[in-house]
Amino acid sequence: MSGTELGVVHTRIERADADAVRTLSAYGVATVHEAMGRVGLMRPYIRPVYRGARLCGPAVTVLLQPGDNWMLHVAAEQVQEGDVLVAGCTTESEDGFFGELLATSLRSRGCAGLVIDGGCRDVKALAAMGFPVWSRAISAKGTVKATLGSVNIPVVCAGALVHPGDAIVADDDGVVCVPRAMAAATLAAAAKREANEGAKRAKLAAGVLGLDMYGMRQPLAAAGLRYVD
Amino acid sequence: MSGTELGVVHTRIERADADAVRTLSAYGVATVHEAMGRVGLMRPYIRPVYRGARLCGPAVTVLLQPGDNWMLHVAAEQVQEGDVLVAGCTTESEDGFFGELLATSLRSRGCAGLVIDGGCRDVKALAAMGFPVWSRAISAKGTVKATLGSVNIPVVCAGALVHPGDAIVADDDGVVCVPRAMAAATLAAAAKREANEGAKRAKLAAGVLGLDMYGMRQPLAAAGLRYVD
Amino acid sequence: MSGTELGVVHTRIERADADAVRTLSAYGVATVHEAMGRVGLMRPYIRPVYRGARLCGPAVTVLLQPGDNWMLHVAAEQVQEGDVLVAGCTTESEDGFFGELLATSLRSRGCAGLVIDGGCRDVKALAAMGFPVWSRAISAKGTVKATLGSVNIPVVCAGALVHPGDAIVADDDGVVCVPRAMAAATLAAAAKREANEGAKRAKLAAGVLGLDMYGMRQPLAAAGLRYVD
Amino acid sequence: MSGTELGVVHTRIERADADAVRTLSAYGVATVHEAMGRVGLMRPYIRPVYRGARLCGPAVTVLLQPGDNWMLHVAAEQVQEGDVLVAGCTTESEDGFFGELLATSLRSRGCAGLVIDGGCRDVKALAAMGFPVWSRAISAKGTVKATLGSVNIPVVCAGALVHPGDAIVADDDGVVCVPRAMAAATLAAAAKREANEGAKRAKLAAGVLGLDMYGMRQPLAAAGLRYVD
Amino acid sequence: MSGTELGVVHTRIERADADAVRTLSAYGVATVHEAMGRVGLMRPYIRPVYRGARLCGPAVTVLLQPGDNWMLHVAAEQVQEGDVLVAGCTTESEDGFFGELLATSLRSRGCAGLVIDGGCRDVKALAAMGFPVWSRAISAKGTVKATLGSVNIPVVCAGALVHPGDAIVADDDGVVCVPRAMAAATLAAAAKREANEGAKRAKLAAGVLGLDMYGMRQPLAAAGLRYVD
Amino acid sequence: MSGTELGVVHTRIERADADAVRTLSAYGVATVHEAMGRVGLMRPYIRPVYRGARLCGPAVTVLLQPGDNWMLHVAAEQVQEGDVLVAGCTTESEDGFFGELLATSLRSRGCAGLVIDGGCRDVKALAAMGFPVWSRAISAKGTVKATLGSVNIPVVCAGALVHPGDAIVADDDGVVCVPRAMAAATLAAAAKREANEGAKRAKLAAGVLGLDMYGMRQPLAAAGLRYVD
Repeated sequence: MSGTELGVVHTRIERADADAVRTLSAYGVATVHEAMGRVGLMRPYIRPVYRGARLCGPAVTVLLQPGDNWMLHVAAEQVQEGDVLVAGCTTESEDGFFGELLATSLRSRGCAGLVIDGGCRDVKALAAMGFPVWSRAISAKGTVKATLGSVNIPVVCAGALVHPGDAIVADDDGVVCVPRAMAAATLAAAAKREANEGAKRAKLAAGVLGLDMYGMRQPLAAAGLRYVD
Repeated sequence: MSGTELGVVHTRIERADADAVRTLSAYGVATVHEAMGRVGLMRPYIRPVYRGARLCGPAVTVLLQPGDNWMLHVAAEQVQEGDVLVAGCTTESEDGFFGELLATSLRSRGCAGLVIDGGCRDVKALAAMGFPVWSRAISAKGTVKATLGSVNIPVVCAGALVHPGDAIVADDDGVVCVPRAMAAATLAAAAKREANEGAKRAKLAAGVLGLDMYGMRQPLAAAGLRYVD
Repeated sequence: MSGTELGVVHTRIERADADAVRTLSAYGVATVHEAMGRVGLMRPYIRPVYRGARLCGPAVTVLLQPGDNWMLHVAAEQVQEGDVLVAGCTTESEDGFFGELLATSLRSRGCAGLVIDGGCRDVKALAAMGFPVWSRAISAKGTVKATLGSVNIPVVCAGALVHPGDAIVADDDGVVCVPRAMAAATLAAAAKREANEGAKRAKLAAGVLGLDMYGMRQPLAAAGLRYVD
Repeated sequence: MSGTELGVVHTRIERADADAVRTLSAYGVATVHEAMGRVGLMRPYIRPVYRGARLCGPAVTVLLQPGDNWMLHVAAEQVQEGDVLVAGCTTESEDGFFGELLATSLRSRGCAGLVIDGGCRDVKALAAMGFPVWSRAISAKGTVKATLGSVNIPVVCAGALVHPGDAIVADDDGVVCVPRAMAAATLAAAAKREANEGAKRAKLAAGVLGLDMYGMRQPLAAAGLRYVD
Repeated sequence: MSGTELGVVHTRIERADADAVRTLSAYGVATVHEAMGRVGLMRPYIRPVYRGARLCGPAVTVLLQPGDNWMLHVAAEQVQEGDVLVAGCTTESEDGFFGELLATSLRSRGCAGLVIDGGCRDVKALAAMGFPVWSRAISAKGTVKATLGSVNIPVVCAGALVHPGDAIVADDDGVVCVPRAMAAATLAAAAKREANEGAKRAKLAAGVLGLDMYGMRQPLAAAGLRYVD
Repeated sequence: MSGTELGVVHTRIERADADAVRTLSAYGVATVHEAMGRVGLMRPYIRPVYRGARLCGPAVTVLLQPGDNWMLHVAAEQVQEGDVLVAGCTTESEDGFFGELLATSLRSRGCAGLVIDGGCRDVKALAAMGFPVWSRAISAKGTVKATLGSVNIPVVCAGALVHPGDAIVADDDGVVCVPRAMAAATLAAAAKREANEGAKRAKLAAGVLGLDMYGMRQPLAAAGLRYVD
């Protein structure tokens, strides 16, 4: 069903293959995003609340209402070891939906971290705990528990479509979503890309120009580029 | 398949039922959004390029690359009488992807209008033609034709997920997407809501307070509201 | 009491003098803002939902919670003939707190219009009714009725502090708040300013330069301005 | 001299050829921008304060300080019949630097209109006068006269570099700057483009697809586009 | 007097009780904000210029003009040991009103730190000095000294109303203002909350769900939440 | 030629004097900006991708197309030991134009760093390499190589005009451009300013007020400042 259902918790989801997720976790967001053909990236306003955080795991999704974190508690029960919680919101809201207590709860269930298209608080404590969060804002504003959203439905988070079970990769460069069915193929492409990058890096470090390494001079000339002394 | 495929045009889509779309077109965006249970609304940064425009029809979707409108030409061929073209973009871009010439082409194919998570130009001509467009910006910046996107895949447009064939309703209040499978149910709910609104409007116009009409005094008191002289 | 109380409705407020308000309504926002010494102006993101609207009246204030318009119904009962409803919000929210039904209710009580640091919907109907609204966004997103705010406490709306009973003046240039105790003095200053403006306008229209009319040449030279041929 | 000098008024500038400007005024911003090879466009946050305004003329430039409109008075003296005043600012400022009185003064000197990377007020009066202004905000906030900027130096306005005497074209689509030396060439390119557009418009209106008219099918296939039934 | 006076320095203010401030300094912003009933929080665009800074003290307030830091020098004389300087601005301005020299001056008077709804510069030096600043931007843009504002009047800073003498608490989560008269009550509520949090944290760490700890299952079911296998 | 040429690489530029650049590198952005008379500063949205980075060198400029980094490869060849690459873009784009591979290439040519009015990725690797970048966003979004821009033409970067060869100074406070011809004069002014700052800092640290040190009391009184007990 393609529509957004409210008031529903899907308790059974298929997660991206655990081995694929484990291997994927070795790659950075930029590499994974390239390996996917440059789709699935969240908007750059989603930032880690502390630098150096990294994340890779299957998504448990939640749809929140503005200024209301009721469904985060509902979602916590659906989280399994290694899962990443991904929270969208029906409208733009920078309130502090999430803080140290919820992080403690999620951590106790083995949750790998949170990506939220909303605000987050207690950022010092989160850094101390090492619980990684990517959010659109840091805000101490507390939220209510009054209106239903849903858990484990497809959600839009920071412009990216995330289905439950998709693999989420996040680091200092941002957050990318790898659809479950594409995890294996993405993995292969990422490995290939990484292998190539080492050779390219060495050449560039030795002073070879991208112009030559990528064979750009001819197409640039064909496009009309002129050099003027 | 839940992933975003690039370089693909789906030529066969199932459109929301034509009768449902016709009936739906009588309702405004706010009513339809309420009838759906308050989901499916695009972010409010999507605005009509001229006031008073209205739109209702099944979606042909297109995924654009930033600063590149190649796929709009590809999408034009897939548009049928009454369709609404809905364009997402892989990143945020305010360039002028669309103008009078493309509008002329779409109009000749019976296209009802465009919703684009990007910029639009020739707005005076569009108003003169009566071709309705909702966009995130008005910009004369021309775009190139160099990189593939896709047509008729699920796209995220202004924060809303749109599948090909979903019904799109747009007016001065914004844009809402009604999933194909929910069109009939939404219709019924909208009709019921509208019927109720007439009676409510009359009461309120006669001076009855919402406090009384909606029975709010008791819950407000229960929540602790105090009146101070 | 200087703190923000939640859950309170002050039923008795002192309104700016009715004669002062009536006279003030003849002046535009720019003139009133200058007459006050350039304070009291709301941030320019507050815009009229239709062009040409004008407003002048004493404020009934309301503090909303994000995505929740419960208190607008509470506030409606406190509005008297000619009052302007001014709504602040505890956080930034662009949801559609207000629409045609609430406007119908407020109109039936003689309300002159609304200024809201949030979103508004049904803008076509509002224009048709001639019910003027200044808002930060246009959005069809409906709101809930779950959390208490307050009525007739001092609120911050779009960066300006508004006390209940202050005079609110709004037009296409924006919104300014005249504290109740300053209404008379502002009036006098506005009248004086307006009188001067007529003479100035005539001189400028006749080709006299501001440089000469305002005697700027000497201070410019003293500041070091150089003319280069 | 490439540096930004403060406190200087250049009284002699070379204006774009008057005939070229007159002919250029027949074209819209989108056409001129294309004719220039897609450079010179101001950022889309610069918008007309009323719809339907149009403008074409040589630039008199002014660099303002934030919240300070002193130099607009200095610039007024440098304006000749048909000139467009273009105002940059040393930092981002949305204050109301400009209003009806300054418009009256500029109008009396034959000024064609204003483009300002700042705020503007008295927008109703400006529309009534028919004095066209493109600004980044509408704000009643008055400005002081305390700090020197410069007149007729190169300025950056909304991201575009403008030299004194360059031709400025503005309409509902935005604002473009045509360097003085390029006015004639741009004119020729615009004329050619416009001529082509008529034929294209007719074909597209008759149902010919852009895919065929522009010969896109082969390059799309070469790029790998797949059609799926 | 509720209006904003310009050109006035109030030299005598009543500060929040010193003992209360000292005790309050042990709590974080999120806790204090909750203890106050979720009011008084500044907008999340106010951020510390370096991470890990903390602040608690009574406010000396100052109203600035855009691009003008004259009144910061006036305010410096009014600052006493432990005070926090809180600066609002008559319009939005990101200029660098404050830097190392002013920090040196404030530090020598015992000032605990600055909260400014404007820009700040010399951030490396400020971090080295350990002088904490919360600002809306980092900008090297210097400011002038030309126009009067006021000191120790009520100001709006980042959307929050601050009276002279109110207690300001700031950390990595943001900035909250505790009205002077509410300091003691807030303290008690914060202590109670903190005490409760320890117990809650332990339960959540042990794997108890918020759903059970907060008794949410029944109200969720009553609201209609459905679990789907 | 004042217009923006596309498709051109100027291979010969005159760089700011090497001695001047070396001496300039001892000063921070705020000092240099003041020394220049407060012009040449980029907008504060340009931020270092890691804290503590510093930069000083002559500019090699490049004009990019949105979502396209082809010209960065072309520019790399033009970079000499100590140069700073400065990239403007024809429209606003936050895509990740630049990452570790390009940094490796630039580093091998002696490039001092990058200032880009666009996005940047691989920020962790950049910090590890110590290759300093100032950008408007951090984004993993890859870019294409399809459309020509230019190298070593005047570009607008974050609101500042930069000519090839101008000296660029950047640190945690932002980025300033010193026109080549003004480097020597700016140097002298910066030295003078710095000398004065030491004495001022000492006085302020000893408790002397800016009010007295700068002789502000008389002008403040003349402007009408009133002290109220």
